Amino acid sequence: MKVKFEVVQETIERALLKAGLTAEQAKVCAATHAKSSRDGVYSHGLNRVPRFVDYVKKGWVNVDGKPELVKAVGAVENYDGQMGIGILNAKFSMNRAIELAKSHGIGVVTLKNTTHWMRGGSYAWDAAEAGYMAICWTNTESCMPAWGAKAPCVGNNPFCIGIPCDEGNIVLDMAMSQYSYGKLQVTRLAGKELPYPGGFDKDGNLTSDPGAIEESMRILPTGYWKGSGLAVVLDMAAALMANGLSGNQIDQVDKGSCGQCCQIFIAFDPYLFGSKDEIETMLKGRIDALHAAEPEREGGHVSYPGERTIKTRKESMETGVEVDETVWAEVCALAE
Amino acid sequence: MKVKFEVVQETIERALLKAGLTAEQAKVCAATHAKSSRDGVYSHGLNRVPRFVDYVKKGWVNVDGKPELVKAVGAVENYDGQMGIGILNAKFSMNRAIELAKSHGIGVVTLKNTTHWMRGGSYAWDAAEAGYMAICWTNTESCMPAWGAKAPCVGNNPFCIGIPCDEGNIVLDMAMSQYSYGKLQVTRLAGKELPYPGGFDKDGNLTSDPGAIEESMRILPTGYWKGSGLAVVLDMAAALMANGLSGNQIDQVDKGSCGQCCQIFIAFDPYLFGSKDEIETMLKGRIDALHAAEPEREGGHVSYPGERTIKTRKESMETGVEVDETVWAEVCALAE
Repeated sequence: MKVKFEVVQETIERALLKAGLTAEQAKVCAATHAKSSRDGVYSHGLNRVPRFVDYVKKGWVNVDGKPELVKAVGAVENYDGQMGIGILNAKFSMNRAIELAKSHGIGVVTLKNTTHWMRGGSYAWDAAEAGYMAICWTNTESCMPAWGAKAPCVGNNPFCIGIPCDEGNIVLDMAMSQYSYGKLQVTRLAGKELPYPGGFDKDGNLTSDPGAIEESMRILPTGYWKGSGLAVVLDMAAALMANGLSGNQIDQVDKGSCGQCCQIFIAFDPYLFGSKDEIETMLKGRIDALHAAEPEREGGHVSYPGERTIKTRKESMETGVEVDETVWAEVCALAE
Repeated sequence: MKVKFEVVQETIERALLKAGLTAEQAKVCAATHAKSSRDGVYSHGLNRVPRFVDYVKKGWVNVDGKPELVKAVGAVENYDGQMGIGILNAKFSMNRAIELAKSHGIGVVTLKNTTHWMRGGSYAWDAAEAGYMAICWTNTESCMPAWGAKAPCVGNNPFCIGIPCDEGNIVLDMAMSQYSYGKLQVTRLAGKELPYPGGFDKDGNLTSDPGAIEESMRILPTGYWKGSGLAVVLDMAAALMANGLSGNQIDQVDKGSCGQCCQIFIAFDPYLFGSKDEIETMLKGRIDALHAAEPEREGGHVSYPGERTIKTRKESMETGVEVDETVWAEVCALAE
């Protein structure tokens, strides 16, 4: 069903207030969740609110926790997230990276002991909207078998890049698994197969059957060994740069996807060397070349990362945000 | 056939001297090519020497070109590579990024108008061996269809991360195509199929037949839409940060894989926030957890990026570097 964006946002806000967040915290978090659903990232939008509320109730998320500076060196600052609210910690960190970039050309915030940041792309969109290029990533608990392993032993460690562009901000937001568990579930419930193999079944055969992968928990790294290798290195890099926990150490904490994870936020002034005109001309040319590419299928369209998000966003604002009825009822109940 | 590492290196060095490089240039480039073959990256080791010599003879590589500082802002410096020797430009840039990291915690060199850096991993290995974490990537001419496109319209834009580690340096070196054209050729010549689909045939069907992909030129982005999106954004980011050419502009230059490309070098002091002991303990734990993972197949081994490289390196130094007989004869002739 479809619900007006403002109603989704207000309802989440009330649910978060009920859960014990301050008015300001609830407002920012609700906007972030609602925008994720608006942009088509349902898994970390409205759908994630009940789990977040559950984590707050369990005390796994410390609603009073705020990022504390551990150490600053030049263009880089390290913060302890105090297991505070993941969205707020991440927003603080990206903003601070942008401030550092204003003085140093580049700015880096490395954050440890934080909780799930929900949709990683949120912060790349934020930076692009503020006129900054950004790279950010997080490590996570183990949810994917590394290449050659039978059971999950590495995170899907989402990695995001945002680039401001007048034509439409360019934002890549990719986890290192080919599909999310959310996508497997949605596909299975629809009685469909995945468009391309998404994991191994319990007998070790590559399969496009979502149910078989949910059963085996052998979700496929994107690009087989490549996404697996990138996931491992992003995990190590995040833990190293933030002096925090690596994925295998997060597993020991045993708080599911709540975290105690590490996140890296890099901001870069896009007009440091080229003028805005020069950069916009280059980006427009790059986009035009993609759009001019002959599509593989008749009626197809070659798009740049973020392009379809902007389309979904527009549709959601015009006709309402798509919500799952069960989840919507659940969040409405939390808001009562 | 196998040839002693020192003999491979000396032979390439003589070939490069004959091509007009100075003694110092030939020495550094020969060592880099020889080390790539030693590490099993044959495509950009010995095998690439004849093409490099050809580019020098054509004047596409400017052997007198040296990186010229365009502008410096805080932790970031922008250089014009003057279409100089790609390996030397890249080595200069990574060294300079490390120097900047010594003052700012992080150091970034953005390089434009450079030529093919050969094996991207070389510079991540260099940084790790110098005790620095590094991220580097390049854009390239279009050699891969973006997701949904029929013909090549984006580069494979290799992306590398290096992390120093006593247990064995951790180095990821990944291009955004699932397989290289080199791998397709080698597999076809051996009369084999690829282990997983590597592209589309001319009728648009996913295939593991290397010859069919060579014919269609429809090589597969790693992880389908994901590697395609990452390739597009890395291209834009490199051109933006260096104020140089994007992949579609490189195509206009029409000098094949020679370049006029942009490369980004980021160095990070790995012990900025954690002590060396803390970081080494975390990395060792992460590696141990991978090694402890139950392998998917009996006798299997879950490895970290760079681990197999170190194994191949050791074997090459003990029993000789594997070389293709035809290429070896060609390079020997160039050295005469």
